Amino acid sequence: MDNENCLGCRLANKNETIYMVYEDDYVTCFLDHDPFNEGHTLILPKQHFHDVDELDDETANAIMKASILISKALKRLFQPDGITINQNGGLFNELTHYHMHVVPRYEGQWFGEFYSEEAVGEVDVWELERVRGRMMEVIAEVMASNE
Amino acid sequence: MDNENCLGCRLANKNETIYMVYEDDYVTCFLDHDPFNEGHTLILPKQHFHDVDELDDETANAIMKASILISKALKRLFQPDGITINQNGGLFNELTHYHMHVVPRYEGQWFGEFYSEEAVGEVDVWELERVRGRMMEVIAEVMASNE
Repeated sequence: MDNENCLGCRLANKNETIYMVYEDDYVTCFLDHDPFNEGHTLILPKQHFHDVDELDDETANAIMKASILISKALKRLFQPDGITINQNGGLFNELTHYHMHVVPRYEGQWFGEFYSEEAVGEVDVWELERVRGRMMEVIAEVMASNE
Repeated sequence: MDNENCLGCRLANKNETIYMVYEDDYVTCFLDHDPFNEGHTLILPKQHFHDVDELDDETANAIMKASILISKALKRLFQPDGITINQNGGLFNELTHYHMHVVPRYEGQWFGEFYSEEAVGEVDVWELERVRGRMMEVIAEVMASNE
């Protein structure tokens, strides 16, 4: 079902370098390589879907469940003032593969900047790897406490 | 479960004037009274929750299902260039009751404006009522075609 010509499919199926923090049968969650803030995570279905209205029930529910898990982990790890969840469809989905952003935010940060057209600068891979390690620890804690 | 001191609870339980387009046992969907574009819809749980990570499974799944239904209806009715789904938590949840925005968008529209601090001007209730009627018709069509 996944499509090797689709970057989103390759990312979600780990055929590209990603900073994965969680996966289940339906979705892969990994750090945005150009985060709005530390911990900014993307949730992608492993199967190819473009828009929200194409999702099957299992994938839709897995996305929502993952967004809850990631939100809990972000709160434990960063104590943000809030979390914004954002998903752009159609023409505004530049990846042309469904992806939901889960973004920790702090007081005074205007999310409009999220929509600024800015080229991705140099990506700090060590920083991403560090955050990934911390996120994975906290996600394991959250999952253990839910059991 | 619902709290009469919470505006979100009152809206979701129809104790305030709303332009409702859909409801089920868990959620109420109604038009934003200050839409980014025509058809801009809010999804609120009937039970009181503040943040996404507080939602129970049934409510979380109902929200996702409603966002898919509303997206299908918006596509049929307005043929937008894309749909943005947005949910702000914590300090950025001004209603202090979970609400997901489902927003049709058109090419060239910068969603950053969504985050501009603007007072709500005069609300055109006739326009909202007109859009509500059309949305309800299309949602019925979508639901029938899903059966």
